[in-house]
Amino acid sequence: MSFCQAFMTELHRHIGPATDVPAGDIGVGSREIGYLFGQYKRLTNRYDSGTLTGKDPLLGGIPARPEATGYGTVYFLQAMLAARGESLDGYTAVVSGSGNVAFHAIAELCELGAVPVVCSDSGGYVHDPAGIDLEVLRDLNVTRRERLSAYPEHVPSARFFPGESPWDVPCDVALPCATQNELGEQDALRLVKNDVRAVAEGANMPCTPAAVQIFREAGVAVAPGKAANAGGVATSALEMRQNAARDRWTFDQTDRTLRKVMEDIHTECLSTDDEHGLPGDYVVGANIAGFRTVVAAMEANGYI
Amino acid sequence: MSFCQAFMTELHRHIGPATDVPAGDIGVGSREIGYLFGQYKRLTNRYDSGTLTGKDPLLGGIPARPEATGYGTVYFLQAMLAARGESLDGYTAVVSGSGNVAFHAIAELCELGAVPVVCSDSGGYVHDPAGIDLEVLRDLNVTRRERLSAYPEHVPSARFFPGESPWDVPCDVALPCATQNELGEQDALRLVKNDVRAVAEGANMPCTPAAVQIFREAGVAVAPGKAANAGGVATSALEMRQNAARDRWTFDQTDRTLRKVMEDIHTECLSTDDEHGLPGDYVVGANIAGFRTVVAAMEANGYI
Amino acid sequence: MSFCQAFMTELHRHIGPATDVPAGDIGVGSREIGYLFGQYKRLTNRYDSGTLTGKDPLLGGIPARPEATGYGTVYFLQAMLAARGESLDGYTAVVSGSGNVAFHAIAELCELGAVPVVCSDSGGYVHDPAGIDLEVLRDLNVTRRERLSAYPEHVPSARFFPGESPWDVPCDVALPCATQNELGEQDALRLVKNDVRAVAEGANMPCTPAAVQIFREAGVAVAPGKAANAGGVATSALEMRQNAARDRWTFDQTDRTLRKVMEDIHTECLSTDDEHGLPGDYVVGANIAGFRTVVAAMEANGYI
Amino acid sequence: MSFCQAFMTELHRHIGPATDVPAGDIGVGSREIGYLFGQYKRLTNRYDSGTLTGKDPLLGGIPARPEATGYGTVYFLQAMLAARGESLDGYTAVVSGSGNVAFHAIAELCELGAVPVVCSDSGGYVHDPAGIDLEVLRDLNVTRRERLSAYPEHVPSARFFPGESPWDVPCDVALPCATQNELGEQDALRLVKNDVRAVAEGANMPCTPAAVQIFREAGVAVAPGKAANAGGVATSALEMRQNAARDRWTFDQTDRTLRKVMEDIHTECLSTDDEHGLPGDYVVGANIAGFRTVVAAMEANGYI
Amino acid sequence: MSFCQAFMTELHRHIGPATDVPAGDIGVGSREIGYLFGQYKRLTNRYDSGTLTGKDPLLGGIPARPEATGYGTVYFLQAMLAARGESLDGYTAVVSGSGNVAFHAIAELCELGAVPVVCSDSGGYVHDPAGIDLEVLRDLNVTRRERLSAYPEHVPSARFFPGESPWDVPCDVALPCATQNELGEQDALRLVKNDVRAVAEGANMPCTPAAVQIFREAGVAVAPGKAANAGGVATSALEMRQNAARDRWTFDQTDRTLRKVMEDIHTECLSTDDEHGLPGDYVVGANIAGFRTVVAAMEANGYI
Amino acid sequence: MSFCQAFMTELHRHIGPATDVPAGDIGVGSREIGYLFGQYKRLTNRYDSGTLTGKDPLLGGIPARPEATGYGTVYFLQAMLAARGESLDGYTAVVSGSGNVAFHAIAELCELGAVPVVCSDSGGYVHDPAGIDLEVLRDLNVTRRERLSAYPEHVPSARFFPGESPWDVPCDVALPCATQNELGEQDALRLVKNDVRAVAEGANMPCTPAAVQIFREAGVAVAPGKAANAGGVATSALEMRQNAARDRWTFDQTDRTLRKVMEDIHTECLSTDDEHGLPGDYVVGANIAGFRTVVAAMEANGYI
Repeated sequence: MSFCQAFMTELHRHIGPATDVPAGDIGVGSREIGYLFGQYKRLTNRYDSGTLTGKDPLLGGIPARPEATGYGTVYFLQAMLAARGESLDGYTAVVSGSGNVAFHAIAELCELGAVPVVCSDSGGYVHDPAGIDLEVLRDLNVTRRERLSAYPEHVPSARFFPGESPWDVPCDVALPCATQNELGEQDALRLVKNDVRAVAEGANMPCTPAAVQIFREAGVAVAPGKAANAGGVATSALEMRQNAARDRWTFDQTDRTLRKVMEDIHTECLSTDDEHGLPGDYVVGANIAGFRTVVAAMEANGYI
Repeated sequence: MSFCQAFMTELHRHIGPATDVPAGDIGVGSREIGYLFGQYKRLTNRYDSGTLTGKDPLLGGIPARPEATGYGTVYFLQAMLAARGESLDGYTAVVSGSGNVAFHAIAELCELGAVPVVCSDSGGYVHDPAGIDLEVLRDLNVTRRERLSAYPEHVPSARFFPGESPWDVPCDVALPCATQNELGEQDALRLVKNDVRAVAEGANMPCTPAAVQIFREAGVAVAPGKAANAGGVATSALEMRQNAARDRWTFDQTDRTLRKVMEDIHTECLSTDDEHGLPGDYVVGANIAGFRTVVAAMEANGYI
Repeated sequence: MSFCQAFMTELHRHIGPATDVPAGDIGVGSREIGYLFGQYKRLTNRYDSGTLTGKDPLLGGIPARPEATGYGTVYFLQAMLAARGESLDGYTAVVSGSGNVAFHAIAELCELGAVPVVCSDSGGYVHDPAGIDLEVLRDLNVTRRERLSAYPEHVPSARFFPGESPWDVPCDVALPCATQNELGEQDALRLVKNDVRAVAEGANMPCTPAAVQIFREAGVAVAPGKAANAGGVATSALEMRQNAARDRWTFDQTDRTLRKVMEDIHTECLSTDDEHGLPGDYVVGANIAGFRTVVAAMEANGYI
Repeated sequence: MSFCQAFMTELHRHIGPATDVPAGDIGVGSREIGYLFGQYKRLTNRYDSGTLTGKDPLLGGIPARPEATGYGTVYFLQAMLAARGESLDGYTAVVSGSGNVAFHAIAELCELGAVPVVCSDSGGYVHDPAGIDLEVLRDLNVTRRERLSAYPEHVPSARFFPGESPWDVPCDVALPCATQNELGEQDALRLVKNDVRAVAEGANMPCTPAAVQIFREAGVAVAPGKAANAGGVATSALEMRQNAARDRWTFDQTDRTLRKVMEDIHTECLSTDDEHGLPGDYVVGANIAGFRTVVAAMEANGYI
Repeated sequence: MSFCQAFMTELHRHIGPATDVPAGDIGVGSREIGYLFGQYKRLTNRYDSGTLTGKDPLLGGIPARPEATGYGTVYFLQAMLAARGESLDGYTAVVSGSGNVAFHAIAELCELGAVPVVCSDSGGYVHDPAGIDLEVLRDLNVTRRERLSAYPEHVPSARFFPGESPWDVPCDVALPCATQNELGEQDALRLVKNDVRAVAEGANMPCTPAAVQIFREAGVAVAPGKAANAGGVATSALEMRQNAARDRWTFDQTDRTLRKVMEDIHTECLSTDDEHGLPGDYVVGANIAGFRTVVAAMEANGYI
Repeated sequence: MSFCQAFMTELHRHIGPATDVPAGDIGVGSREIGYLFGQYKRLTNRYDSGTLTGKDPLLGGIPARPEATGYGTVYFLQAMLAARGESLDGYTAVVSGSGNVAFHAIAELCELGAVPVVCSDSGGYVHDPAGIDLEVLRDLNVTRRERLSAYPEHVPSARFFPGESPWDVPCDVALPCATQNELGEQDALRLVKNDVRAVAEGANMPCTPAAVQIFREAGVAVAPGKAANAGGVATSALEMRQNAARDRWTFDQTDRTLRKVMEDIHTECLSTDDEHGLPGDYVVGANIAGFRTVVAAMEANGYI
């Protein structure tokens, strides 16, 4: 709390709802955002809730902000499969990680009929052929603050593989949601060999360039993090919108809008692909679409 | 007008849509708010309509702001009766006062099928067994600016009781909407004897603590002003929301939202009661719920 | 771009979303507004999109802003005819001008079943008995940047009348959408003789006072520019509303709201007419209604 | 007072000690400046005394501000004569006007040994061969608020010439201190014929261009108003200096500095003359020196 | 330090070099002012040293600020005696108190040849016929932080009178420098009986109205605190002047200016007395002069 | 000019007379400061001359700012010698560099009776036994913009030594005024062997630590740059003082104050030395004195 307040004592000069709007990240959740916001208000005498996002709903935060990155990744994956005439229903999924992103990705996969059989932490991975038990996972994470290695104690059918790569487990879809460069060349080869259908990056750049190349050559659909995990940032923008209008969104309203945003991103990647003769190459599509938006904005603002 | 302008010449430094937002109160209606707002704009060069609430709709005010406290009190009363399996339909009501709050409470009681037979001013009370005639009341208040003692001249069936307490009249529901401490121990005993079902405070703390105690012991439902007359302040918040979004709400939209707000407050009081083993004790429920919100906000902001 | 930036370097001190909100006009389209806005943000460090209207949607502009004046004029005309028990369906229309206002008026006339047979530029007018071909017109304006005299090259049925007045062509409705004082006494007499039903000013004061007088005496309905072409300014207000709420309106949402706004303006003119015993005299109705709003606002603000 | 306060209610946004610093002029003396300053402080909550000059010393004004223009004109005249080897001692002076500038010019002329024998108002001029009596003049101006025609009642030796030009009276130095274009071609010819030595403009451009030309050709030294009456503005700058340092200057300190400023202006005109081969032509010298300063400042600021 | 910082976190919005300039008082010395100023700079990012006075010279404080009230009281006393043809040289003085004001009053009395024989604290008074030893007093106050009762241990010639009134000691001049109402009717009678010549209030209103009345009737000169102890506030104004000009005054410069300020205050009281026919009645003179200044400022600002 | 303006467009938010005050440095002289200041005023609408120092006097700069570092270094050297009972009169000096610092150091050395026989640029050094001719040096630098190698063409007695170290030339005082680390161990040994009396750093850290160590051991007085070349920064502070008071200092006033500042710095170093038992060790004295000031300021501000 002290650190947050001291930090904001200097930062408050440089931010604002129409200037720069910080959000939390690793180690900065809604609790820390609350302390930052409290100090911001104390100093500026302004209840400018749009100055920070990721707030607790009590202080003007939007519901579904914690779920947004995980859900969004799965929405993108779903749209990508639909474009290929497939669906998640009945698909086996391997998800790496077990934190915020991974947990909500697993939850949404279940919701959509997929069977997520793997999750992991830095100690290894759990394989639960019956599908990861969400209640057990939440209990370990939030209440007990235990490591994943304790998971089999609560679920007899599951097994923990210390120090091994989750990508060994055969699956239809793979969602690397843990950390940068966690899925390398060998992992990709094994996934391809196991006939993976699609890969969706919930983390930032979890697949190495070499792994991505292998997927592309094998015709595996790859959802690049730049597009697939944009749900968190997009929902921060929704929070700014809620705050600007002094509105109070429901969970469903946010979730519905998030899904629409992810589908639009998917569509823009896809049509950009087609336009450049690389149908289905989402990596290229996301890069070009992003770059074009920046250039168009620079030109329109006269920043050239 | 001069006073409003001189007052705002100093006040303008200390208020703003994200800082402090004054509203009218006794003797300060939309006309005075308009003069204050006009001077605010003249000085700050900003059309910040969210800086004041209770404005005339022409200057950005929300419709149904004058009705809000009176309507809201009746909505709370309605919810409270519904929780006991009763309804206002056919109930006889005694309302004290005849000003803004009382008038709109009477109007809404009629709307919901109740029969308000009494209203009062500082000179005494009118008893009209056929139910107070709203048009006559508005005419006295607004057009003729006459005292209630003139009411029987227009409604032969009515009688005026100078200097007497309205709580002598038997009724199913009592709505003290006039002023602080207007309903004392003796009044409460008489109401209980006359088998009153519920009391809803439209004014701020109109029942003395002793009166409240008598009601609680007799099992009469009491809607404390803290919760029951929150409709005015709640609608000011809606006005801020309308102004933030540069929107223009309709009367119905405001009224519907107000009703929802009052029902939510009722629900929160009720569930807080249950949680503390005092089912139906709205006085305790409102106090605890209010206190908890303040504490939670202080903790979340790091103000400890 | 240089001029826009230098201009804003001084202007930025005097504008803001709650102070003064400039919009484009002749020679200042969304491109110039973008340069102005870009410089505004550079200087103030604030992304206050509500500071300027007429922006490109990429920078926060509202869709249908370019269409607004033309569409709005036709919506007003439609309401005016409906009040007389007539409809645009099948009516022949003469529209002067071929720029932004005229083009979208023609488009909306087609949409509503009318047949716009004339449009013009400073060189003369085109008469196309089959109805102006919108694609050809857009092509000339935007792609080829040619004069109207080239129109017959693309549409054999059409004929160009260099240097002549479009008001010679018989029509049911006339929409002067070009410039001030373009429709004089003689034009009015000819239109009346040709049995025109209604005149709607898409430009600012295109009919001379004498022309207006002739129309009024002949019982021709006249939609004065003050009311009929308010759609552009009204849509700028919608853009401010969109920006305040950080919302993103669709074309349809804007168009629907615009239509409602125009119908409300029509209704207010009409009822003001009735109130003053001059039914159907929109010129007087618009003047009185406008004046009354200003006076009411001055009184409410205490600016007297 | 009301007008000053209303005017400042808008003006306060655009001025400030480092932005624009208004001063009084015709009809706006220290009383009006005080009302403006009072309102400025009320609105801004800042005691920024450097925001206005010409204040009463009680509110931070500098002493000798009223005297500055008149004294300064005489200091310039003195320097000009000294450069020609002459002195004011014993010189007969004709001063037009009897207001603020003229009065203090007359006072300073007396101080330096000259004999001002004429002053005037719009009704005519007084000729007092013994030298204008300052006490009588002040008494007429300030206490009695009478016209100059009453002067001879108090000074038997004086005579009033209604409707005539003061420049008929022979003199060594002429100081037009009344108004624009008050000294024309014929006046100049007469003064030259009467052997005038020097002319100093206390008013703004009192000599017509033709008159100036006659003086230049006759070798009469002309002190152009641009340089000669700069004492008022210069003393406003001293007031800003006093206010910036929260200092309190004495009359003598201001007067000494004023004299130095006027001598420096004289020297700069003179040396500019020499540089351009027009020795003693103060009109040209003042123009060139002024222009060069502006250009140099523009270049140094990069305003080109 | 924590308290100062938390206090300034709110206060910083309401002060500034041209708005309100707080200074220390009882319990708030240059150390606390430094903490307040440090926090002010941290929050506002501005080194506005004129925002607070009483600063340590390291942070922009003026020298002689701690001495100012005590010295100033003696300067006023000296001027008062001089106006009666007397001088402090050789006069016996009784000073109550031994804090900041009393200590520097004693020091300055010594400087001017008087013999201060008494000082006091809440426990009683010291009588040292040889004159109070400044070094011993400073040593007790600052280094040892001991009570005055320890004084005789260091100065054999002195005696401590616990719980008694210092005004019993015969003296030529009495300087109550401790606290409000410390010198009552009986004290005044005894002083008059002992032939006191003058009384100078170093504290705020230390003499009761009855005591003052006795002095006035006995012809004893009384320097009221309003005038006599203005040296502290006056030196704060000098500190603001030093800060505005980013200057650095020396001790002597401050002391010289302070003496001049006190003499001017004395002169203004005296001349106001004469004007109202009450020569030498400083109490009346100070009241009238103070009131007149306020009225004149109000009129000049248009605050009426 | 373009670069300065673009740079200030962002910088203006972060600076101000009471916040941060940039000054020129290598490649940024009064011309560039003028462009920065011009843009600052254009953007902020404030003539806050204290926002930048090193301005041209036309824009509020202080005279003697270019001379300050060079003169100051010599003033420090003079004080250091005086403390040892020596004087510059008749001393031979070697100065490295020929830019702003070196030139004005040479000029001041001449003024004080020393004979600067060497100056240098990156191509080598000039040795002129008769003393460097200032006019020739200025002519080369400013008018001709030639290299030092051309010096002997104008002064027959001089010789240019390409690529050699100026420290070979025997001298009484050495002033490294060129660049960092320009005077190494070998140079120091040679200077000591040639019996140098004192070394004064006009550049920032021109002597390597090893060289400094040699000088200290040999008892040569060393004026460290931290103290000796503080004249430039000190004069910037004087410029801020001039601007704060809207004053206009003369060259002499600045120079006199600069000399006083340098002598005070010298005194503080010296007394700090004595306090720590290292008499005459200016390196240590400057370090300790500087550190103590920072610590004292931090404590006084409560920044701990």
